Amino acid sequence: MDQGNTAFLLISAALVLLMTPGLAFFYGGLVKAKSVVSMMMMSFGALGLIGVLWVIYGYAIAFPGAEGTLFPWMIDWSAVGLESLVLDAADPAGDYPVLAFAAFQATFAIITVALISGAIADRAKFGAWMVFAGIWATVVYFPVASWVFNFGLADDGSFAYGGWITHGLQDAFGVGVIDFAGGTAVHINAGAAALALALVLGKRVGFQKGAYTPHNPPFVLLGAGLLWFGWFGFNAGSELAADGTASLVFINTIAAPAAALLAWLVVEKLRNGKATSVGAASGAVAGLVAITPACGALTPMFAILLGLIAGAVCAVAIDLKFALGFDDSLDVVGIHLVGGLIGTLYLGFFANNTGLFMSGFDPAQLGVQAIAAFAVLIYSFVLAYVIGFAIEKTMGFRVKNEDEIAGIDTVVHGEEAYLFEDKARA
Amino acid sequence: MDQGNTAFLLISAALVLLMTPGLAFFYGGLVKAKSVVSMMMMSFGALGLIGVLWVIYGYAIAFPGAEGTLFPWMIDWSAVGLESLVLDAADPAGDYPVLAFAAFQATFAIITVALISGAIADRAKFGAWMVFAGIWATVVYFPVASWVFNFGLADDGSFAYGGWITHGLQDAFGVGVIDFAGGTAVHINAGAAALALALVLGKRVGFQKGAYTPHNPPFVLLGAGLLWFGWFGFNAGSELAADGTASLVFINTIAAPAAALLAWLVVEKLRNGKATSVGAASGAVAGLVAITPACGALTPMFAILLGLIAGAVCAVAIDLKFALGFDDSLDVVGIHLVGGLIGTLYLGFFANNTGLFMSGFDPAQLGVQAIAAFAVLIYSFVLAYVIGFAIEKTMGFRVKNEDEIAGIDTVVHGEEAYLFEDKARA
Amino acid sequence: MDQGNTAFLLISAALVLLMTPGLAFFYGGLVKAKSVVSMMMMSFGALGLIGVLWVIYGYAIAFPGAEGTLFPWMIDWSAVGLESLVLDAADPAGDYPVLAFAAFQATFAIITVALISGAIADRAKFGAWMVFAGIWATVVYFPVASWVFNFGLADDGSFAYGGWITHGLQDAFGVGVIDFAGGTAVHINAGAAALALALVLGKRVGFQKGAYTPHNPPFVLLGAGLLWFGWFGFNAGSELAADGTASLVFINTIAAPAAALLAWLVVEKLRNGKATSVGAASGAVAGLVAITPACGALTPMFAILLGLIAGAVCAVAIDLKFALGFDDSLDVVGIHLVGGLIGTLYLGFFANNTGLFMSGFDPAQLGVQAIAAFAVLIYSFVLAYVIGFAIEKTMGFRVKNEDEIAGIDTVVHGEEAYLFEDKARA
Repeated sequence: MDQGNTAFLLISAALVLLMTPGLAFFYGGLVKAKSVVSMMMMSFGALGLIGVLWVIYGYAIAFPGAEGTLFPWMIDWSAVGLESLVLDAADPAGDYPVLAFAAFQATFAIITVALISGAIADRAKFGAWMVFAGIWATVVYFPVASWVFNFGLADDGSFAYGGWITHGLQDAFGVGVIDFAGGTAVHINAGAAALALALVLGKRVGFQKGAYTPHNPPFVLLGAGLLWFGWFGFNAGSELAADGTASLVFINTIAAPAAALLAWLVVEKLRNGKATSVGAASGAVAGLVAITPACGALTPMFAILLGLIAGAVCAVAIDLKFALGFDDSLDVVGIHLVGGLIGTLYLGFFANNTGLFMSGFDPAQLGVQAIAAFAVLIYSFVLAYVIGFAIEKTMGFRVKNEDEIAGIDTVVHGEEAYLFEDKARA
Repeated sequence: MDQGNTAFLLISAALVLLMTPGLAFFYGGLVKAKSVVSMMMMSFGALGLIGVLWVIYGYAIAFPGAEGTLFPWMIDWSAVGLESLVLDAADPAGDYPVLAFAAFQATFAIITVALISGAIADRAKFGAWMVFAGIWATVVYFPVASWVFNFGLADDGSFAYGGWITHGLQDAFGVGVIDFAGGTAVHINAGAAALALALVLGKRVGFQKGAYTPHNPPFVLLGAGLLWFGWFGFNAGSELAADGTASLVFINTIAAPAAALLAWLVVEKLRNGKATSVGAASGAVAGLVAITPACGALTPMFAILLGLIAGAVCAVAIDLKFALGFDDSLDVVGIHLVGGLIGTLYLGFFANNTGLFMSGFDPAQLGVQAIAAFAVLIYSFVLAYVIGFAIEKTMGFRVKNEDEIAGIDTVVHGEEAYLFEDKARA
Repeated sequence: MDQGNTAFLLISAALVLLMTPGLAFFYGGLVKAKSVVSMMMMSFGALGLIGVLWVIYGYAIAFPGAEGTLFPWMIDWSAVGLESLVLDAADPAGDYPVLAFAAFQATFAIITVALISGAIADRAKFGAWMVFAGIWATVVYFPVASWVFNFGLADDGSFAYGGWITHGLQDAFGVGVIDFAGGTAVHINAGAAALALALVLGKRVGFQKGAYTPHNPPFVLLGAGLLWFGWFGFNAGSELAADGTASLVFINTIAAPAAALLAWLVVEKLRNGKATSVGAASGAVAGLVAITPACGALTPMFAILLGLIAGAVCAVAIDLKFALGFDDSLDVVGIHLVGGLIGTLYLGFFANNTGLFMSGFDPAQLGVQAIAAFAVLIYSFVLAYVIGFAIEKTMGFRVKNEDEIAGIDTVVHGEEAYLFEDKARA
């Protein structure tokens, strides 16, 4: 066992766990002051629920090992409750205890579920959200994670086994999908589910462009800062070793979001005459999303180019919801789905050695990237829609309009986010 | 020397240091808007004072080495000012420089003292708090840390030396106390002192159930997020190595607080019909407290069970103060003392191999856990009461009632936490 | 390659990157509520811009290697876009991939530029700031970093090559400058540039002592907490190894700011009768600044002494601006320039073995420390003044007085920091 790599993996897991509170602030600052608690609670609720489910059976579904990984759903019964991993921890065969990897991956499951909640700001019941979170994680995130992240390599570097996205596409096309840290399993997955829920819950009262102003840009910046910080664990930690590739990933996780931040501000300046702090935060996150699948397969200058594209395109893409009429309240689609697609497909063109423009126009990489991206997109969208629809029709997912107008925090949680005037103590 | 372990220990120390600012936000969000600065300053004051005292003589009291560790107070004069550790740092005999361990333990001393301040919100003089902090650390925390954390192992795994809690109870009962990261020395210790100070300072003006509403739930969540993040350093770092046990500890530090968060919300929902964000934050902290002593001696499923118990019991225990009439303002007793007792005693029942239910009903583990827990509880409570009482009778600990009503921030610190309306600049 | 050291370096880089969002909160809490977004955006803008410039050519200027490092400006064309480092990453010759070092140093460049912005609160155009940031980084920070940080050691410990500050002064005086983590290149550098910009932009409307009250002390404390946390990466990470020196650095990075926090509060208490939270935060930062160059060359007790001096002196020094009439709004001069000078010159007296009082009154160390400090001070001041002046005379650096009074956030960024009353949604 290598203790340097284990230290890197465990600290990376801590960083990724902090991303979910960071997301709570990114999202919480974007909503109105009457919905802050509700918004943040969807992230913290995911932290609690998915943290528990991961230990009980999430890991066992996402990492069934070599057995039958070409099936979309599979469970390793010996890993239920992480029992088999506890035994391994005392004397790991590899570079790090598998429990460290399970902890690291737990934080991925949590943040992916939390990401979805941005689409349904101001109007979702907390209990319904929790039910959705548990079911979606079980039938979408855990298995999709196995498609992308569950693979083993033989000594010659070929796949010993893997989910259908890694192993299967490699077998079929001779080129493996590149998704270093989860552009498909995390961002496209969450973004597609967000789109589905935005459609299921419908538009907020008074939905139109310009109707919503973030109530607390400093919180948005705090969230973006914590997300960026945690993303180093997310991306570089995905190398599972503190080595040269992790170092390349790290610098790309500075370069791409930095470039995307600038690109988003330039688009804003050109369109509206003013560059905003919410734009800076959103641009950084768009760049982080886009570099997630690509961080290990690009030189830093190509990471900058990707960041510029992601920042500029996402800055425009967030207006799609007004054109198309779906209320993806905090732009999970515009940033995570679009940004995830940009990063995943960009590899088809610019991945070192194999991208279309780096390999003498071999389209195989682009092909497998597109198949992986759209397979996850469609799978997640359809199931999220079905789950969300079933919840809406049974227990109800959306609060009443008068409750939305009165403010969801007091109605659902019995709390106000801010009591500066000491009202409650008069 | 192992650089992976040293890296792990140093980064863990950084994470634990961040817990004290995190605590400032957890506590700061729970008070009224007129007491935020005062509340946060008790944490930051502890950061400054205990940081300095630790270097000068705290470490020398807490870690006197093999010499006479069965005495409750002892000092290693060669370690005053950490002088002997500086020499060791150049060429450490063990896995890591002892200075790295001293830095790690410094952050424990700081947060333990800061935890106490939650009991005396809205009404404590800052100077009196600082005097209390310095004396309590000197006569309670530093020696109690030596009882629990100061031990060395012989080659065969037996204690070569140790404080009376580790070494002495092991000698007497054949079973050693399990307190992986400080359920006794940190949480029971701080919780008991908090109870003493709540009694010394007395109830706030108008103390009754329902009189206090947290002024800033987002700050409470921010604090909980930073605490959780830092707690990975606290618990996993206590293994002093990035290994399999640290990995088990890490996943348990996800599982237990996640379960406790859910349990607290369920209790709230059943009792009041609404799950709150303050409940989510409190539940997570309760689970973190309970898993602290237990994180290395439970499988993840037993960590979940412990989290469920801690979350549910603490959610009820915080009402004790109204029933019994002591104003532990921010529930240091209900969360840290009760949670610390739950975690410490739970090991008596469920510790791997040695717990009552895991060893064919051998009560020894439960016995030593109970002795350790109540010894620290009583020692800390009595001395904290005496110190606090002496301060109240001499320099005065509590502000005047009219100052409490006017708002302690302006009276004591000359500051207002928020100036949104630009009043000061009119 | 050592994976423990690489892990330490990469995680340290993540910690330092978080310092810039931390600084945004430290600064953001200090200004009035109408300038928060502007203040924070200067930090986040630096994050975006310097992150990109560093990758493109910043590293190549700061680390030109052994070639001609005695010239104040030099560029390693092979390192443009970090191309040569990508090749190295696969098979590093040393302890860690150079890309990890490049990532670590990127975060230094970013925070140094961001620090300057504290001098021009409430009145700077964002576009002009970004132009200044890019030019100053190019002609001041990148080359000054090469003077201080770009050196190589031969097997016998002598300089194989180095910038004029490290190598040149060592050659001339037989004693090398001690600047462990950037007292000169970061704090004196930024502080001197801040003074220049304060003079270029001039005083705010109504500038006088007592006219400015921080609008959000909790944000100031949050910023200080995040800065302190990140500073462990900054200082200990600068050892580039998780070893005994890093451990000494780490404990000194607790001791000095803790002592400085206390000293600042004592000065406040003696002068005004009240110790403030802004004082605690400022004291901690002053101690962190002062220990930055000195953290590897002092025992912990001398670190405490340095902290006490820095805290007390800076607490007084921040009033210089009122006496001398320059509007260094958030005390970049009083904390970073003065604190950086204190730390750098203190080594001349108290550095282990070589300081005036530790070497039988050999003045060489003090001499080279002073030369390095004032060389950077003058270079940065002059160029920052010229750049700032040119910007003011061409595109304009300062907003109109009526815009400053109306509030720069809405005028420049079209945003308000807080919408608690839901005004925008009426």
